[in-house]
Amino acid sequence: MSVKISIVGAGSAVFSLRLVSDLYKTPSLKGATVCLMDIDDQRLSAVQTLARKFASEAGADITFEATNDLEKAVDGANYVINSAMVGGHAFLEKMRAIGEKHGYYRGIDTQEFNMVSDYYTLTNWKQFDFFTQLTHLMEQRAPNAWMLQAANPVFEGTTLIRRTSSIKMMGFCHGHFSVREISKALNLDINHVDWQVAGVNHGIWLNRFRYKGQDAYPLLEEYLLVLSDWKPEQPFDDNFSPAAQDMFGFYGVYPIGDTPRNGSWKYHFDTDTKKRWYGEPWGGADAPEGWSWYQHQLSLVTQVMAQMAQAIKEKPSLDVRTFLTPKVGQLPEAFLQETQRILDSKEMSGEQHIPFIDALENNHGNRFVVNIPNQGLIPDIADDVAIEVNAWVDKAGIHPEPIDPPLPKRVIQWYLTPRIMRMEWALEAFIKKDPMLIEEFLIRDLRTQSLEQVRSVVQEIMQESGYLGDS
Amino acid sequence: MSVKISIVGAGSAVFSLRLVSDLYKTPSLKGATVCLMDIDDQRLSAVQTLARKFASEAGADITFEATNDLEKAVDGANYVINSAMVGGHAFLEKMRAIGEKHGYYRGIDTQEFNMVSDYYTLTNWKQFDFFTQLTHLMEQRAPNAWMLQAANPVFEGTTLIRRTSSIKMMGFCHGHFSVREISKALNLDINHVDWQVAGVNHGIWLNRFRYKGQDAYPLLEEYLLVLSDWKPEQPFDDNFSPAAQDMFGFYGVYPIGDTPRNGSWKYHFDTDTKKRWYGEPWGGADAPEGWSWYQHQLSLVTQVMAQMAQAIKEKPSLDVRTFLTPKVGQLPEAFLQETQRILDSKEMSGEQHIPFIDALENNHGNRFVVNIPNQGLIPDIADDVAIEVNAWVDKAGIHPEPIDPPLPKRVIQWYLTPRIMRMEWALEAFIKKDPMLIEEFLIRDLRTQSLEQVRSVVQEIMQESGYLGDS
Repeated sequence: MSVKISIVGAGSAVFSLRLVSDLYKTPSLKGATVCLMDIDDQRLSAVQTLARKFASEAGADITFEATNDLEKAVDGANYVINSAMVGGHAFLEKMRAIGEKHGYYRGIDTQEFNMVSDYYTLTNWKQFDFFTQLTHLMEQRAPNAWMLQAANPVFEGTTLIRRTSSIKMMGFCHGHFSVREISKALNLDINHVDWQVAGVNHGIWLNRFRYKGQDAYPLLEEYLLVLSDWKPEQPFDDNFSPAAQDMFGFYGVYPIGDTPRNGSWKYHFDTDTKKRWYGEPWGGADAPEGWSWYQHQLSLVTQVMAQMAQAIKEKPSLDVRTFLTPKVGQLPEAFLQETQRILDSKEMSGEQHIPFIDALENNHGNRFVVNIPNQGLIPDIADDVAIEVNAWVDKAGIHPEPIDPPLPKRVIQWYLTPRIMRMEWALEAFIKKDPMLIEEFLIRDLRTQSLEQVRSVVQEIMQESGYLGDS
Repeated sequence: MSVKISIVGAGSAVFSLRLVSDLYKTPSLKGATVCLMDIDDQRLSAVQTLARKFASEAGADITFEATNDLEKAVDGANYVINSAMVGGHAFLEKMRAIGEKHGYYRGIDTQEFNMVSDYYTLTNWKQFDFFTQLTHLMEQRAPNAWMLQAANPVFEGTTLIRRTSSIKMMGFCHGHFSVREISKALNLDINHVDWQVAGVNHGIWLNRFRYKGQDAYPLLEEYLLVLSDWKPEQPFDDNFSPAAQDMFGFYGVYPIGDTPRNGSWKYHFDTDTKKRWYGEPWGGADAPEGWSWYQHQLSLVTQVMAQMAQAIKEKPSLDVRTFLTPKVGQLPEAFLQETQRILDSKEMSGEQHIPFIDALENNHGNRFVVNIPNQGLIPDIADDVAIEVNAWVDKAGIHPEPIDPPLPKRVIQWYLTPRIMRMEWALEAFIKKDPMLIEEFLIRDLRTQSLEQVRSVVQEIMQESGYLGDS
């Protein structure tokens, strides 16, 4: 039986190509149909051209479909991978600007333990609405399909969907990949590293870190001790930032992936503070300069993707390798590496979606980091809150690992509890579509100085995001 | 068998006299010994004189002891009522001044849902130390005695003691008395009001309010609708303040007792904000003017108590009624009413301690509002967190009532969760004696603008409170 995998929001070309390349590197999934869905026809057309080209060069047996109709993507799908960002970055930046105008540095969605600049939980009702729309559609038209959630906010999204829908659904993120980077920095062979992470999406912690049967934390501590003159290579290079190290000191376990970005206000009061904790010149990915850097990279990549697609359309036999070479000067290093990986015949992208599908479909059991309801795995957290943990997946299903050793109480009480509390507030505000709850949320915000400030920012946000409140 | 009741911190004369008068109005406890303990000899001597005088005028059969030795108070005690405030108000005001100097309006102990001006949880390690010292002493010398906790913070204190000590212990507060005041304002006969409160100390909510078999909330709503030109009679008059009404609107149940004082920053950003929500001219009890008013009343009462004691010493046959009359002009109305009640032969003070002792000793079953570990009574709250709920008490023990109807989720998620979270942070900071945890607490405080501000305030607090931190 051939599998239909639909990618919703397929216009983000790099993400889609990663999945497609993973697919053609997974022989057991040959014959699959990939349905690319996006409402942006131009981007959809470009990604379709690229996907077909890469797949055909790899000699892959994949059938492609492309549509801007969500129902067509859902119909007959076995897996729906959702990576859509409703309104795109432009919407997020607009919301941020309104927040900043009213005195909320980096926008109102920037919050304690949720500082990532495109992980919106308060002004993002359109995104949540889309989650709901998609799951309802799946319930109607593909009730046995899996929904694999890649779009942010994965934490709020997974919790919301698992609470309100009967479909099979799981949230994915690649943040745990920094365990590999950290191990590499320490000169540890990842194949001998016994590791485990636990927490919530963008707030995960290395609760287990052993090397060849021994605790590897002393090696990490030793490494940090001799680490001097640390400077980031790019804004996202924060595994060993002063912020990450300080969080390690306070919480007693190492923050993984996007977690160093998601500290308290201590590291984020203002841009100078960010520079101190995430390094010069950017102040990390979530400072104005760091975020501009990212947006610039993103637009370069989008441009080159569009150009490449155009060139392929004009000359189907084009060798994409030669296309990439002359532009190297302008192109982000990470993107070139990424493209090399996609073109490489063996190396997987690191995204978990295709291996996950392979595990379920062909019983190719594998270890993943998944977002699933807690169900008692982490103590003092409600059963229906989505946590991010390691799990073994095979044809028989999802088998989350017991958290061993347990997360320190410090992490649960000082980090996860306040983060989960705000997730609950944000979800209730969305579910009730109640701007008064956003107001109440902001009343408790460190940047708030008066009720008037709260009311005016919420009013403008509601107006500009198309939800006219009655507050 | 005669019962020994020790009052620790007996120097707060009004509170001690309330208990003594309750005792001589409870015939089933005749023959009891009351041990008055305080480290302030002058106040102890005054309260002893007054207690003996009032008791003898009432023809009571009470044996009095007075000591400044805690061990003597504990030895042989059946009940130890703790009302001691270590360092007194002077210490609290000193801590507040340091906070204000560093930009923390009303001091660092003033926190979201903990705005009461003498309910300190961060700078009050001396108080917590005393709780621990007293419970340890009781474990050694009176392991079967009950500790009745009256001293604030009752929430943190009860949780701490119940987690760390094996002694029988319960926290008491009289905040629920405002159910009577509210019923009276609505012209409801309290004997026909079926009510229940639930929450945590200083954060309790009227989850059940029925009158003669009918829901009484519509009567309350009607009352609020026609309530116009509300003005407080004194700073503590806040049952129907705009703040209380606004909290009712948001949470869906009415805030009781000290709860209207303990809203979010919405009502407390600054003194003008307080005046808007708690009325002119004071801005409520926890604004600078309201708190000065209270401190002035307190000092007047202390003075008159000392004068009265002196007058009795000089002339043991003095009629205290005549002593009070000529000074009426200066004396707080509430104090005069209080004294009338103490002199009255029947009316009880409203404090729960003596009726509680009577219930346990003589099986005179009664309904109380107690602070006890949650143990599943309120969902989504850990078992070992002290909650404040109604309970029936008799010789067989404490029988907490099921919470019926349950507290709204709104109260649990938006009020109790953040309050409990901060209780946990404060207790961990105390238990570890770790100023870094106070810093981390303040990093998440709305008034904080920088890490430097946090560090400097914590350093000065630690120095001035006698705990030299190593932070």
